[in-house]
Amino acid sequence: MKKNQFHLPDGVIYLDGNSLGPLPKAAIERIQKTVVDEWGDMLITAWNSAGWFQQPNVLGNRLAPLIGAATDTVVLGDTLSIKVFQALAAGLQMRPDRNVILSDKGNFPTDLYIAEGLIKLTGRDIQLKLVEPEEVADSLDEGVAVMMLTEVDYKTGRMHSMSELTRKAHSVGAVALWDLAHSAGAIPVDLQGCNPEFAVGCTYKYLNAGPGAPAFIYTRPDLGDIVEPALCGWMGHASPFAFDKGYKPAPSISRMRVGTPPVLQMAALDAALDIWDDVSIDDVRKKSIELSELFIKEIELRCPQLRLISPRDSKMRGSQVSFTWDNGFEAIKALAANGVIGDFRAPDVMRFGFTPLYLDEHDVMKAIIIIEKIINENIWAQEQFKRPSSLGGRAT
Amino acid sequence: MKKNQFHLPDGVIYLDGNSLGPLPKAAIERIQKTVVDEWGDMLITAWNSAGWFQQPNVLGNRLAPLIGAATDTVVLGDTLSIKVFQALAAGLQMRPDRNVILSDKGNFPTDLYIAEGLIKLTGRDIQLKLVEPEEVADSLDEGVAVMMLTEVDYKTGRMHSMSELTRKAHSVGAVALWDLAHSAGAIPVDLQGCNPEFAVGCTYKYLNAGPGAPAFIYTRPDLGDIVEPALCGWMGHASPFAFDKGYKPAPSISRMRVGTPPVLQMAALDAALDIWDDVSIDDVRKKSIELSELFIKEIELRCPQLRLISPRDSKMRGSQVSFTWDNGFEAIKALAANGVIGDFRAPDVMRFGFTPLYLDEHDVMKAIIIIEKIINENIWAQEQFKRPSSLGGRAT
Repeated sequence: MKKNQFHLPDGVIYLDGNSLGPLPKAAIERIQKTVVDEWGDMLITAWNSAGWFQQPNVLGNRLAPLIGAATDTVVLGDTLSIKVFQALAAGLQMRPDRNVILSDKGNFPTDLYIAEGLIKLTGRDIQLKLVEPEEVADSLDEGVAVMMLTEVDYKTGRMHSMSELTRKAHSVGAVALWDLAHSAGAIPVDLQGCNPEFAVGCTYKYLNAGPGAPAFIYTRPDLGDIVEPALCGWMGHASPFAFDKGYKPAPSISRMRVGTPPVLQMAALDAALDIWDDVSIDDVRKKSIELSELFIKEIELRCPQLRLISPRDSKMRGSQVSFTWDNGFEAIKALAANGVIGDFRAPDVMRFGFTPLYLDEHDVMKAIIIIEKIINENIWAQEQFKRPSSLGGRAT
Repeated sequence: MKKNQFHLPDGVIYLDGNSLGPLPKAAIERIQKTVVDEWGDMLITAWNSAGWFQQPNVLGNRLAPLIGAATDTVVLGDTLSIKVFQALAAGLQMRPDRNVILSDKGNFPTDLYIAEGLIKLTGRDIQLKLVEPEEVADSLDEGVAVMMLTEVDYKTGRMHSMSELTRKAHSVGAVALWDLAHSAGAIPVDLQGCNPEFAVGCTYKYLNAGPGAPAFIYTRPDLGDIVEPALCGWMGHASPFAFDKGYKPAPSISRMRVGTPPVLQMAALDAALDIWDDVSIDDVRKKSIELSELFIKEIELRCPQLRLISPRDSKMRGSQVSFTWDNGFEAIKALAANGVIGDFRAPDVMRFGFTPLYLDEHDVMKAIIIIEKIINENIWAQEQFKRPSSLGGRAT
């Protein structure tokens, strides 16, 4: 759809945009401009005259339509871990008399680690309750303070129903917090329609904003001026340059800003968002389903030793497809050496992302043929692809 | 000393390196390389093969000698606000039976805001006690859990004695946390000699790593494996890619990592640190005192209407010099329009930074002559430099 707008190395079929999106060509110049024309030539004055201060809010408003959010409800900054912390802390504060954070066992570990740390910090007797993904709905009861879920499972691509689970959470008085790491830019998200209190996500996957790109946080409009920030940084203060002694939160989503924004990373994000200006997320989703279906059909046919662990029903699946195989680590490594980049998640998951902005059927068919060859001709078994015993599980 | 290694706009004398250091020429190419050769060509594989994962630790070790820290005790990431939060939370946890955070009224507001937010979050009955800078020593008693100070006052340049106050804090059993925002790269810092438990700082001022550059955090070597992180992100986990359910902190300073590091900002920092490879911080300090003394002497002589609020004794002063004047806002604005960039801090402080890496006596004398002219010929009073009533206080 927008392949010519990306810098894609020759001879590589990139099925790992779900981990790190490729470089938008426009980002090269945009970053250069920010570095030389702004930092270099304007120096400190660029904070105002190049708009650096407002960038986290301006980019939040650019990103908002992609996740169905209203203006001034999304802001960029920090990392996803920090944004999870902020949203979860705010959620817990809204339910001081409840003592359960409900999540599922498939949630991305850092979300759960952050919850662990936050619980210890609060000194409250809070339980982090983890259930199977399909048990979340039935586990919602009036003890739950916050339901914290990642919409699309990072390992399997399984999707929760944000609308149903949020409704159910609200029916028992729980706060809903959604992690959109594998949703934003991959599938249509309707925050306003689903009505959760909080959402967070990253921009380096399907939004292609580069390694270490800032994360985002969304607060429901009615809560913007009510939520008490746990991380009270000066950029979230009502008057950052008054240098008042006491913290007074900024209006609405700006109070979720913390410290000085990462200006160079913001420049990359700005260029990456340009690509979405004339692309519809519905078209992206439709195309990604077509590519995923093609991939599943052909891989199951050609490589029956691989077992699909992603939902077979495309409505239940995000933009990635995962298979398990005992030799998955070696296979992913051998694939990378042969121009097909997917990724591996311990202990045995081969994960492939389908990103129609820069992938088409032709690419996917080529990848399928290479995968078939690597696996069925035992190329994966070559010494060079062997898993070192010390490695935690990252193949690419 | 290293002027030719910086991109400095023609006709500008930059006396605001204490706010945002200028662009190191080498950063232009380094960032470009990271963007195109690494992100662009290596894609996801760059996390390992370009060393992105280790960058926060590698850069921590490069920065360590500048602040007198041992290997593997400093790590980069996030913003200074977040690092203050981490260090302060760790300090409070080490003193569960004490209930005072002691700081001074001159501390940078975000440090105090972060403390406010953290106190609320813990639910502990902790008091943030703010005293005059000169009263800190006498205010240390056995109720103090953490003494949290910024070594060099952002407004006046006044310096605390890190060695004396840390010794005093330890004598009453308090934890010492130092913010080195205006110290790192400006004055010699001896963390090992002074022995505080924690230190934090930013890299976009005297270290010239660019707008939104990552912050750093130091943990004393004996505490590295003991401190319990409050922000438990996956990058601080002992095995980030094992995707374990439970959080297990990484050894030593790595546990103070949180989320995915800002790779593009790290590239800029890497280039900025190159400049320090053959510069001694003692020489930088010596030169900065010479420049500051020259500036104070000449400004007091030529512009008696300005009042020095920085300590007159250079041993008590960091690398910046501040004067108050009722028309300070207008003067700083008029100066910027005439090629001398300082900055303004509400309500009436004109602040000038002396950074010998790219400033010499010739520059400072030129700046003095322009300041004299702007102030004594009433150029500051021109309509265009008038302070808008709505403005919080930022002139440049």
